[in-house]
Amino acid sequence: MRMSIDEILALDKYKRTALLNQISGIRSAHLLGSQSKLGQSNLALFNSVIHIGANPPLLGFIMRPTTVERHSYHNIKETGYFTLNQFPAQLYKQAHQTSAKYPLNISEFEACGFQEEWINDFPAPFVKECSIQIGLAFEEEQLIKANNTRLVIGRIQALTIADSVIDCNGYINFEQLNLVGVSGLNSYYSFQKLGDCPYAKP
Amino acid sequence: MRMSIDEILALDKYKRTALLNQISGIRSAHLLGSQSKLGQSNLALFNSVIHIGANPPLLGFIMRPTTVERHSYHNIKETGYFTLNQFPAQLYKQAHQTSAKYPLNISEFEACGFQEEWINDFPAPFVKECSIQIGLAFEEEQLIKANNTRLVIGRIQALTIADSVIDCNGYINFEQLNLVGVSGLNSYYSFQKLGDCPYAKP
Repeated sequence: MRMSIDEILALDKYKRTALLNQISGIRSAHLLGSQSKLGQSNLALFNSVIHIGANPPLLGFIMRPTTVERHSYHNIKETGYFTLNQFPAQLYKQAHQTSAKYPLNISEFEACGFQEEWINDFPAPFVKECSIQIGLAFEEEQLIKANNTRLVIGRIQALTIADSVIDCNGYINFEQLNLVGVSGLNSYYSFQKLGDCPYAKP
Repeated sequence: MRMSIDEILALDKYKRTALLNQISGIRSAHLLGSQSKLGQSNLALFNSVIHIGANPPLLGFIMRPTTVERHSYHNIKETGYFTLNQFPAQLYKQAHQTSAKYPLNISEFEACGFQEEWINDFPAPFVKECSIQIGLAFEEEQLIKANNTRLVIGRIQALTIADSVIDCNGYINFEQLNLVGVSGLNSYYSFQKLGDCPYAKP
């Protein structure tokens, strides 16, 4: 199928949105944990987390327009802290359920069957069931003019991951970790390792 | 393994970089095709492509600091156009080879064994061997203060994908497409579909 932009825009609205949501390929799936100043916890599924840099250690994600209430964004701006947690394949349905629109006074941790984990004095909740837990401090945000979304960037403050899946060079085995990827908003995939390539030279 | 930011920063430099490059999870792998005004083609591997929005259809990627020559970035700014192409698993070693630092007058298409494909009058080269080909026009860029990287955003102009892998709702089967994901800079993975979830409701 070969489509010009006019043909893409002429597709049925639901088909067009589904297609365009998936076309960037499989993405990693993260549960974002946060808490309001008043102590209300929030957990939300994000599929747009990207690596921004290793030094300083930065991750970013896309926040949709704040024309409706965005609890995670509000908490991050209020407290300055959040967590990103990657979940194992057997929990993907539970994790997906956090994307439902719960009211502000409901914690998705409780509603979807995840446990809050508070590690040392980090001021945002981690997800106990997750195999990679990353604690971040808000660093900066960029408003994207084209569609009023935001790139929100956090600086890594703390990290938990099973030793057994990291080899001597610092490589993580994601197949062994049994993590999942997501296509669009609701198709889930597991990973099988193909191999490592050496640093490429001409 | 539980590490604070101080413990992460104290790791051996190579291990720290490897770990932090992977910690955001598996990402989709794209070959970015571009051409200079003088007609020199360029092909480069990017592992930071993200979905920015479906309406208008926007994708973005992170461009490292332009303190050294960045041929793709230069071409995109010069011509206003580029392509993103997702390759099948059997070509991952060839695709990885495009990440080598070839001089400006060498086309990675030729050097790494890919064929340029020119579709209609789109002013940037697609990769013939790829199963998803996306043509984009430069839309905007955001300079990230924390590390001088850039979020470069393109607006989708054209799209090629096999009909056989899209179902009636517009869902793409990435397992059937046999595409790959990448962890860090050099570990490759294939995908196995777990399942689709319905739109979540409280």
